[in-house]
Amino acid sequence: MSGTTTAPAVPDRDTFVELDRHDPLAPLRDHFDLPTDLIYLDGNSLGALPAGTPAALDAVVRGQWRNDLNRGWTQHGWLRLPVTVGDAIGALIGAAPGQVVVGESTSTNLFKLLWGALAQRPGRRVVLSDTGNFPSDLYVADGLVNLVSGGHELRVVPTDDVVAHLGPDVAVVLLSHVDYRTGEILPVQQITERAHEAGALVLWDLCHSAGAMPVHVDEWGVDLAVGCGYKHLNGGPGAPAFMYVSHRLLPRFTQPVTGWIGHRDPFAFDPVYHRDPSPVGLLSGCPPVLGLVALEQGVRLLRRADLRQIRDKAVALTDRFVRLVAARPGNRRLGLLGPAEAQRRGSHVSYRHPAAEAVVAELLRRGVMVEYRPPDVVRFGFAPLYVRYADVWDAAAALTEAVATVETAVNDGGLRHE
Amino acid sequence: MSGTTTAPAVPDRDTFVELDRHDPLAPLRDHFDLPTDLIYLDGNSLGALPAGTPAALDAVVRGQWRNDLNRGWTQHGWLRLPVTVGDAIGALIGAAPGQVVVGESTSTNLFKLLWGALAQRPGRRVVLSDTGNFPSDLYVADGLVNLVSGGHELRVVPTDDVVAHLGPDVAVVLLSHVDYRTGEILPVQQITERAHEAGALVLWDLCHSAGAMPVHVDEWGVDLAVGCGYKHLNGGPGAPAFMYVSHRLLPRFTQPVTGWIGHRDPFAFDPVYHRDPSPVGLLSGCPPVLGLVALEQGVRLLRRADLRQIRDKAVALTDRFVRLVAARPGNRRLGLLGPAEAQRRGSHVSYRHPAAEAVVAELLRRGVMVEYRPPDVVRFGFAPLYVRYADVWDAAAALTEAVATVETAVNDGGLRHE
Repeated sequence: MSGTTTAPAVPDRDTFVELDRHDPLAPLRDHFDLPTDLIYLDGNSLGALPAGTPAALDAVVRGQWRNDLNRGWTQHGWLRLPVTVGDAIGALIGAAPGQVVVGESTSTNLFKLLWGALAQRPGRRVVLSDTGNFPSDLYVADGLVNLVSGGHELRVVPTDDVVAHLGPDVAVVLLSHVDYRTGEILPVQQITERAHEAGALVLWDLCHSAGAMPVHVDEWGVDLAVGCGYKHLNGGPGAPAFMYVSHRLLPRFTQPVTGWIGHRDPFAFDPVYHRDPSPVGLLSGCPPVLGLVALEQGVRLLRRADLRQIRDKAVALTDRFVRLVAARPGNRRLGLLGPAEAQRRGSHVSYRHPAAEAVVAELLRRGVMVEYRPPDVVRFGFAPLYVRYADVWDAAAALTEAVATVETAVNDGGLRHE
Repeated sequence: MSGTTTAPAVPDRDTFVELDRHDPLAPLRDHFDLPTDLIYLDGNSLGALPAGTPAALDAVVRGQWRNDLNRGWTQHGWLRLPVTVGDAIGALIGAAPGQVVVGESTSTNLFKLLWGALAQRPGRRVVLSDTGNFPSDLYVADGLVNLVSGGHELRVVPTDDVVAHLGPDVAVVLLSHVDYRTGEILPVQQITERAHEAGALVLWDLCHSAGAMPVHVDEWGVDLAVGCGYKHLNGGPGAPAFMYVSHRLLPRFTQPVTGWIGHRDPFAFDPVYHRDPSPVGLLSGCPPVLGLVALEQGVRLLRRADLRQIRDKAVALTDRFVRLVAARPGNRRLGLLGPAEAQRRGSHVSYRHPAAEAVVAELLRRGVMVEYRPPDVVRFGFAPLYVRYADVWDAAAALTEAVATVETAVNDGGLRHE
């Protein structure tokens, strides 16, 4: 009753329940083990638990490790997990087999590929990135250019200015496919083409797009990419991250951390390092088996879905959420970040609010978990595999209440966030 | 009966069973989940499964991850695991709290610390190591000196010549505490003191000593150390590895992979990297939670034991094994590697045999799992927490049979290993 006099009208919750009834992805929700009392809108930070993961881990721990011990490396394919899981991720990002491998953390993987990229462009000294890039990517790049001691430089410009800064000094363009705050999707293919015209390589961070939307690294001509395992791939906390090196570069691509697992025959104990010519040569130390096994479950679950359907549902969820928020006048101090059109945004939506941290806490009290990003951003992630349309309606209603509570408290002098 | 006429006499199996009865460490064996049909002498390559690990993993996966999702990082201390597990490992290697952290793989950790060491000694260009060092350590060091482009060099000399090669050009001495093949224990304190007299830093690889014997990095004046989690720490396949940086170096120590988790406030999303002054500053990416939880169980189990007792039992087991092998004339083609005295060897014993790989396979057929190290080494690891004296007797008997079988086959022309 309360919303019927406002314009635009707030749609009824029942219409959202009806959307769930016709959602082709709805059956996949049962393949996750989710808490029943929570609307989880932070799956783009840590994906939810795939229902098959506990049993898969148990099989490896109490089955393989317990019984077969050190034979597991060969007998159970542990040593090949970086490649088998890598190729499975490759299928999600449009990479033909033999170009993706799961390594250590995203930051460490990025360091290795960025170093390798600079080695491919010895006369060029600029790493070009944008202000919207994830801070860790910029930290790693900044640290690295200061190490290579050839007068290298990290040049960080506004996103829209990246192409204009392409020049003969740029060795590699380092960007995120989807902005971790605003959700803006960058045109990978277009920027990649312009970078190549300028003689530069591209290194794309796919953390917020791998598993969330169709990605076509081969088709788009991408040179290098990294991405994490714990967001849309649902690999669990601290899951290992992947690396992609295009087959065009792979034969002559070198990386700096030349540990034994990247050797073409690690168990020969050769005194001299000979890089494995496959993506295995990107690896350094012993593969993190437990993390790989959990990641494999997450990736396997994703491959049951159609990425086009996942993307379409993400657009529908985020678009409806934004419209619901806009339809309630109490939310006028929530400032949408990034593009207005859902098609130009990834699977998350962010708002600025002067008391963002308090809003996030109020949402959690109402059973809605979202992410606070300092200093003033509330981020809502919509993982289409397990977030329902009804959750969108409920979250928007909770947000309106949370904002009202916080703003009342501020007006009463109870909060000091402004 | 058969052994009573040989000299030296082969002791009776019962005397070994009796030793088990009085072994103070015997009760700890029940804290492992071991296969019943196997004598596992490869725990120095992959430690056995601690009985508490499956439940600990399950609690984190089906409890914390499932229910609390992204809140786990703070609510369940996931973000602190590198430090909490690091300090627990520190207690095993004689490091006061605040100097050890669990990072990624040993090779990656080594790369970071070695880089940091060179940065501490800018005028010096030599990394000094020995021919007995683990190949991966040499690969990493060799790769690194070629990157830093200051005319750096990896100098690899016979172990006994290391001290003689210390000079004003040596930046860092990189050695393994225990030789991965021969088991020889290097005098850490003595070499460290000589290195310091020459103005060099030391970086010790503790992979084969951490958790296997008393180690006193602080007392011995060690500067830097790394070690893996999956051998004597029983952290599981591909467990993350640790780093030690002495408090003397830590305030000004830098490492090259400056990812966000090493930032003093990673969730502030500061555009500029500010290194955490604690060992957290050695980290790069998201901590591998599953691997850390499993490692924590292994470390916790070790801390129930006295490292002096562990070491004493390792000496007793390896010494008895060597004597049993020597007492059987059929074993005369097995050539013991490394020092003759058990006190000078770690927890493993290696033999050369011209058909080593076949001997290893024959042992496995007899229910004894050991390690083959190319080209001609059979390695027996004795993990005192779960290897019994009776296992030593049985393994020695099986070895004699295996050698006889292999040598007969060779004499019959059935094998071509010589």
